[in-house]
Amino acid sequence: MNKARAGNYFEDFAQGQVFQHGTPKTLGDGDRTLYTALYGSRFAHHQSDEFARMIGYPRTPIDDLLVFHMIFGKTVNDISLNAIANLGYADCRFATPVYSGDTLSARSEVIGIKENSDGKSGTVYVRSKGMNQKGDIVLDFVRWVMVRKRNEKIAAQQEEVPQLREAVEAEALGRSCPAINVSSWDWSAGGSTARFSDYEIGERIDHIDGATVEEAEHMMAARLYHNNARVHFNAWQESKGRFGRRIVYGGHVMSLARALSFNGLANAFHLAAINGGRHVAPLFAGSTVFAWSEIRDKALLAGRADVGALRVLTRATRDMPAGGFPLERAKEGAPGVILEFDYWALIPV
Amino acid sequence: MNKARAGNYFEDFAQGQVFQHGTPKTLGDGDRTLYTALYGSRFAHHQSDEFARMIGYPRTPIDDLLVFHMIFGKTVNDISLNAIANLGYADCRFATPVYSGDTLSARSEVIGIKENSDGKSGTVYVRSKGMNQKGDIVLDFVRWVMVRKRNEKIAAQQEEVPQLREAVEAEALGRSCPAINVSSWDWSAGGSTARFSDYEIGERIDHIDGATVEEAEHMMAARLYHNNARVHFNAWQESKGRFGRRIVYGGHVMSLARALSFNGLANAFHLAAINGGRHVAPLFAGSTVFAWSEIRDKALLAGRADVGALRVLTRATRDMPAGGFPLERAKEGAPGVILEFDYWALIPV
Amino acid sequence: MNKARAGNYFEDFAQGQVFQHGTPKTLGDGDRTLYTALYGSRFAHHQSDEFARMIGYPRTPIDDLLVFHMIFGKTVNDISLNAIANLGYADCRFATPVYSGDTLSARSEVIGIKENSDGKSGTVYVRSKGMNQKGDIVLDFVRWVMVRKRNEKIAAQQEEVPQLREAVEAEALGRSCPAINVSSWDWSAGGSTARFSDYEIGERIDHIDGATVEEAEHMMAARLYHNNARVHFNAWQESKGRFGRRIVYGGHVMSLARALSFNGLANAFHLAAINGGRHVAPLFAGSTVFAWSEIRDKALLAGRADVGALRVLTRATRDMPAGGFPLERAKEGAPGVILEFDYWALIPV
Repeated sequence: MNKARAGNYFEDFAQGQVFQHGTPKTLGDGDRTLYTALYGSRFAHHQSDEFARMIGYPRTPIDDLLVFHMIFGKTVNDISLNAIANLGYADCRFATPVYSGDTLSARSEVIGIKENSDGKSGTVYVRSKGMNQKGDIVLDFVRWVMVRKRNEKIAAQQEEVPQLREAVEAEALGRSCPAINVSSWDWSAGGSTARFSDYEIGERIDHIDGATVEEAEHMMAARLYHNNARVHFNAWQESKGRFGRRIVYGGHVMSLARALSFNGLANAFHLAAINGGRHVAPLFAGSTVFAWSEIRDKALLAGRADVGALRVLTRATRDMPAGGFPLERAKEGAPGVILEFDYWALIPV
Repeated sequence: MNKARAGNYFEDFAQGQVFQHGTPKTLGDGDRTLYTALYGSRFAHHQSDEFARMIGYPRTPIDDLLVFHMIFGKTVNDISLNAIANLGYADCRFATPVYSGDTLSARSEVIGIKENSDGKSGTVYVRSKGMNQKGDIVLDFVRWVMVRKRNEKIAAQQEEVPQLREAVEAEALGRSCPAINVSSWDWSAGGSTARFSDYEIGERIDHIDGATVEEAEHMMAARLYHNNARVHFNAWQESKGRFGRRIVYGGHVMSLARALSFNGLANAFHLAAINGGRHVAPLFAGSTVFAWSEIRDKALLAGRADVGALRVLTRATRDMPAGGFPLERAKEGAPGVILEFDYWALIPV
Repeated sequence: MNKARAGNYFEDFAQGQVFQHGTPKTLGDGDRTLYTALYGSRFAHHQSDEFARMIGYPRTPIDDLLVFHMIFGKTVNDISLNAIANLGYADCRFATPVYSGDTLSARSEVIGIKENSDGKSGTVYVRSKGMNQKGDIVLDFVRWVMVRKRNEKIAAQQEEVPQLREAVEAEALGRSCPAINVSSWDWSAGGSTARFSDYEIGERIDHIDGATVEEAEHMMAARLYHNNARVHFNAWQESKGRFGRRIVYGGHVMSLARALSFNGLANAFHLAAINGGRHVAPLFAGSTVFAWSEIRDKALLAGRADVGALRVLTRATRDMPAGGFPLERAKEGAPGVILEFDYWALIPV
């Protein structure tokens, strides 16, 4: 019995294969605090029980991206320990709010497999679901990763590439958001008076601030999420690798960009869905992350007069302020865009 | 509508102007833990529910300086995002104990304005108040900051400089301290047998230990406090700035010095008031902080036989042990004093 | 009255002397979270209340090594502030489970004293006990440290060297482990199907992964534990010292090695006893820690059919992968073994 596992390789995955991932996690007050300390998020309903209750939550819900990272993290040991790259995310829906005291677990199903033409690696598509202790699905998303083959001589499996939505349909949004009492919304506490009607499609917002990342921070974050991908932790190994150093977990960039976006999107309180996310270049400790957003679409939610949805495309850059709304991908250590993050956020109407 | 804000400049402030600051915060167990991990504070009633209950608290109160940072942090976005320097604090009173579960919010009023003679910047004085969820004032203090002008051609406003107390009067102390059951004070658990009568006016104490500061630590601290001043986070920008690098939040030094002062002031358990605080030189990551204290005054509290007040002046240094009781200000990266912190601490009689 | 203390020196210790250590600590949710973020431990019953309840705990117990560090940390101020080296641990028994909300305190008794032949230092042996708020002993262990003399001219004390067990006897194991409901053990959630019968005496396991350590991490950990040994914190002082830099708290290595050992020992959920621990070389920030384990013994527990005990010897290395099962001690900054950690772990039968 081989008790320590080196992770799955491309040829270990099969269409329809299901993984029940290890180590469920009970979320608590400490997770909320540490998340704030790592990213500086200031969305009021995540910081204040009073604010959350005033607008209709029983108490502060766990940050949506913290839920995402916790579920994502559990999948790493089975899915992406030998990943060359996290290629993307799609069709990510937040389905049930998560509170301190809830216990999250995760399972994934392989929904697509495609070998690369060089025969050395391939792309694996999985649909991952996060569940709370009652068995309710709290999160559901697709991701695809490029994974090494262990043995390049093993023949390619039959190719299966899933059809993925370009964006989550507006009708599906809002399932993890209770009825919001907009008349009780405290705009001073919220940090801005801008609401649904104040944003226009095509509008661009420079989030101005920059956040420099340290090794201790991204490693503490990834460990908190049970994300054990070696590239984040093992400087000895990575010093011999592609980049010569540890790579920051891509989700860390998502959370930094979301926290920076508070300056401009302060009342866009809830991530209802992630339409897509692409890490177009890696981030390393020592770099400074900036972000800017574009409003791609707006949608009213069927049967709801409390909140509407903004479709936001946030781009994070490294070592390049976002005032010029840069589009160019960071290459070879140069400044530029590292993340394209397309999501639906709810905001009071 | 300009949705992302670059902060207020000198000409945006007017005498009597009031700011209700954003993002209230519910304090929890995680905040207490992280505060301990960042500073190493060992005052027993902040670490042990049992000790706190034994002496008269319902349970461990939140560290006074953590309360201060939480309120201070909320004011930054409106008051000091474009500050050149945090010049000082005065007349800071802790008025109500704060416990895990309390939600803090903050508001500030401009109480003074004075343009600098060069016409490029000026000093803004604000009185900031922190409230809990019941509306009780938990903290009340004055600070003054030097703020840049956006447009140097705008004429100076009428000068108003507030009269500030040199020290909080002893009669006002103790409002946030319940009756202390001194007969139940466990001096072993407290870490020392020294009490009110053991300290003499003029006495100097070298706190001996040194604490080196890392970038990850001071950024996690500032984010925990919702302090979003750019100088702490944005290495890219600061590499082009005055010092060539990020500056540690001044309050971080106050907390380090207070934690170091446990070795010599172990039973001086509660900061009842801050008479004044001056950051006489900046701190950068990589430096080691030392501290020494002088007992400036002693006062018995009217109607209380349980605790007395020591007026302590703690000086923090960088890269200079405090055994010689150094007074000289650190200049241009050289070792020396960086903080003068004058406060009233309560201690069993 | 000398209020700030520089710690005890060799001649300050006497056989039979008892220390009641300062600053009791109430453990909470934040401690659990931060511990996970610092080490990445994924043992399921420490992460999930649901998993813990399913197998027989009232809720997730505090990680055994976090309990150890909390008790150890309290002893530092009295025992090892002037230690040259932490020589070893022995006869460490976990006697009562610890839960969030419990308050821990510590006391130590000097059980042995032996001056070194050079007359400059000596070894002090102490038995330290950790108690919860009810007075139950939660932990009991012996450690010995080499401590400097203040005054080399003071004559040696009478030598007393305690007899120490080579290992905790199997009959004593399991006191801090409730009856485990093995039929409810979720092997997927646990991360492995390997149980007592799957391990063989003499078996070696490479835990594969590596974890690089940052200054911010080990300092936050040591402060969380109230461990105020100067070598961990004071870069200014240590730059003039033996190694030219801060030394990572040895217990940090124990926790890293234990967390790495999850990959291979996932169901070895509970440290029932530590037979011995030796820090054979120091660790510095920037190094990467690897680990491998050898199963030294197996024991069934009298009257228990739920769990058995594996005697595990885990070796941690710095900057050397553990696949070759290295035995050689790291010397002078070179790669090699830094920790030998011999413990009994319980695992479902």
